[in-house]
Amino acid sequence: MRIELICTGDEVLSGKIVNTNYAHISRRLDEVGLDVIWGTTVGDDRARLLEAFQAAAARADAVVVNGGLGPTVDDLSQEIAAEAAGDRLELRQEWLQRMEKHFAQRGRQMPPNNRKQAMLPTTAELIDNPVGTACGFALDIGSARFFFTPGVPRELHRMLDEEVIPRLAAMTGGSTLHRLKRFHSFGIGESRADAMLADVLDLAPDGGIKLGFQAHYPELETKLAARGASEEEIRRNLEPVADEVRRRLGNFVLAEDDDTLESVILDLLARRDMTIAVGEIGTNGMISGRLAGRRGPNGAFRRGIIAADIGEAFAALGLSGAHNGASSEASQCVARGVMSLAETTHGLSVLVEASPTANGRPAGGVIHIAVATGNSAAPRSAEIVGDEHRVRLGAVEMGLDCLRRHLVGLPIEERVDFEKG
Amino acid sequence: MRIELICTGDEVLSGKIVNTNYAHISRRLDEVGLDVIWGTTVGDDRARLLEAFQAAAARADAVVVNGGLGPTVDDLSQEIAAEAAGDRLELRQEWLQRMEKHFAQRGRQMPPNNRKQAMLPTTAELIDNPVGTACGFALDIGSARFFFTPGVPRELHRMLDEEVIPRLAAMTGGSTLHRLKRFHSFGIGESRADAMLADVLDLAPDGGIKLGFQAHYPELETKLAARGASEEEIRRNLEPVADEVRRRLGNFVLAEDDDTLESVILDLLARRDMTIAVGEIGTNGMISGRLAGRRGPNGAFRRGIIAADIGEAFAALGLSGAHNGASSEASQCVARGVMSLAETTHGLSVLVEASPTANGRPAGGVIHIAVATGNSAAPRSAEIVGDEHRVRLGAVEMGLDCLRRHLVGLPIEERVDFEKG
Repeated sequence: MRIELICTGDEVLSGKIVNTNYAHISRRLDEVGLDVIWGTTVGDDRARLLEAFQAAAARADAVVVNGGLGPTVDDLSQEIAAEAAGDRLELRQEWLQRMEKHFAQRGRQMPPNNRKQAMLPTTAELIDNPVGTACGFALDIGSARFFFTPGVPRELHRMLDEEVIPRLAAMTGGSTLHRLKRFHSFGIGESRADAMLADVLDLAPDGGIKLGFQAHYPELETKLAARGASEEEIRRNLEPVADEVRRRLGNFVLAEDDDTLESVILDLLARRDMTIAVGEIGTNGMISGRLAGRRGPNGAFRRGIIAADIGEAFAALGLSGAHNGASSEASQCVARGVMSLAETTHGLSVLVEASPTANGRPAGGVIHIAVATGNSAAPRSAEIVGDEHRVRLGAVEMGLDCLRRHLVGLPIEERVDFEKG
Repeated sequence: MRIELICTGDEVLSGKIVNTNYAHISRRLDEVGLDVIWGTTVGDDRARLLEAFQAAAARADAVVVNGGLGPTVDDLSQEIAAEAAGDRLELRQEWLQRMEKHFAQRGRQMPPNNRKQAMLPTTAELIDNPVGTACGFALDIGSARFFFTPGVPRELHRMLDEEVIPRLAAMTGGSTLHRLKRFHSFGIGESRADAMLADVLDLAPDGGIKLGFQAHYPELETKLAARGASEEEIRRNLEPVADEVRRRLGNFVLAEDDDTLESVILDLLARRDMTIAVGEIGTNGMISGRLAGRRGPNGAFRRGIIAADIGEAFAALGLSGAHNGASSEASQCVARGVMSLAETTHGLSVLVEASPTANGRPAGGVIHIAVATGNSAAPRSAEIVGDEHRVRLGAVEMGLDCLRRHLVGLPIEERVDFEKG
């Protein structure tokens, strides 16, 4: 099935906002086995919208249109959809009532403008929007089925998953159930992961699984998109493949599905009544930031100290004694010191030194990590490749991952692909 | 002049990567007064690339194509460009030598694959790429002028500014000099700024200035895009407008052009040999992160303490005495405490408490800020509207902006648009 996307709106066309809706729609369709073959971006302009709708109708079987369903005069999607389909607009009482209820629940009267959002082509199938006033709809233009979706990301995401994708899947005539299994890892690059998992899909007795990757440096997301006629069929095919992916990526898998590295760490700590304090140099405070962002009312993250340099860190922790700049020993002192000062069960220290640029090219950087608990501190040093920004992101991830590995009893010294040598 | 953009590549088409190149190109063109009227996204597919080139050639005067200039077999731009123009490819010795030199400087031999990057249509004008091996080029297809640019953002950005935009400007036949003046502000929403600056362009004696806004919550960027036949003409028109924008936005302007709020603060401190330490609760460490990210070898930022709650902050600072949760008094204690402990000239404290959600909708949050120096601490409290994420971003910005205002002698109590009531 040939699917196209049309994104509308002057702000997207002019680059005033980055078009993340396009990427979201295309990626979600890809995850359920539907390929997008063409994308079009046009502004809030009658002639160009009509031209875009007609061109897509001539090429595609299905078209997802995003944006232009709002209450203002520059929102033209319903009107141009009707024109392209040789149809006219009519007021849909059911949606008008929904909108009036929506406003009433918020203690407000519906502004007259919003009435426009209930005007749909007479042949359109209404598509529900449970979280907003923009009404989605489906309509035939030429021989293509068009699906109109709202530009507000939160509304789009729900409508796409709950309403549009099931209808597109039904058009392919095949199985309509989908499940997406995701693994988040740190330390294995995309091409190596691809090679490591080359034959893993052979384990699905009836197939129906698609393997994909998405690199968000320094993490890699490995995705198994499963489709089948029943939950049982999906489970039968997905389970052996997922188990094998988990086995092969092994120690490098830091979280699955909606979990994150920091949520996994905080859960591990909280379940055992453990607490963590952090000392950071050269990381822009991103370790404390990630742990603090997930804290609950009795969260395991207690305190982070961000210091300009190692001397400042020693002063902040009341550590006496000489230090010779950032070193593994200094990092161990910081991890123990911050744990002791904050009276936590664990301390994490990450010190980063970006190396000077060599021949105009980034020269990577040296990092010293230590995870302290009780009377000991486990060290990990590494040299990360890339520019300053990549070194910093890699150091933050490696620091948190050392803590995770320490908490679950895995080796913290295991080499990652982003290390030198 | 009608300009179109064509973005190529399977990763962009499938949403695997978000298409920031599109937004960058379109925004840069907009800033020099060139409007993009249509955007197309297609994959690495011969038939669809050809169709996209032909459709754009039929509609536009100029087309910027991004991607597909790499050394691998799925990079098809040169080949399809030649086909669409009824031309053939030839080897450009000048570019081959440039590439060989590029590799030699890095102590490597050029892989045979890269030879493909020097194959251009015979009628193509070579466009320089000073930072990579992908050769840009311009070519007529039908009556439209096509500009082919590389997908690597760093290479695209330079080629666009230095090579493509001057050629597009020359095609419009008019003046070819451009300058972009930018003001960064916090506290004035886009629609209010628009109203405040409605008549400001009247101050340019010969016109040639375009006013635009870009909201990156919580900051607003106000842009003056100037064009003229000479630097003198641009200066004559831009200066009175820029002065008036600066006057009207007044205390809310926190930086201009490439400066940022944090760079302005760190410069103000460093110039007077002053230093800063920070205490944060509920901000995910973003204040320390922003200040630490800009530190030089002798940076003014010394230390940040990120605490899980007010009790932890008091413990970290060795403060005794009762506290009744986050309050203005508690924030002043933290600002003074962190300054005293870190032995800095200034201390900044920001405490955020997101309010519980009311009726399923975000209820905003209360923030307490204090800027300490010497024996005093200046307080600022506010209630910010929006969800937890917006409250946090607003608190971070307001905290840093209070420090800026304090350093330059402006009132820190001035109301901002994101406050309640």
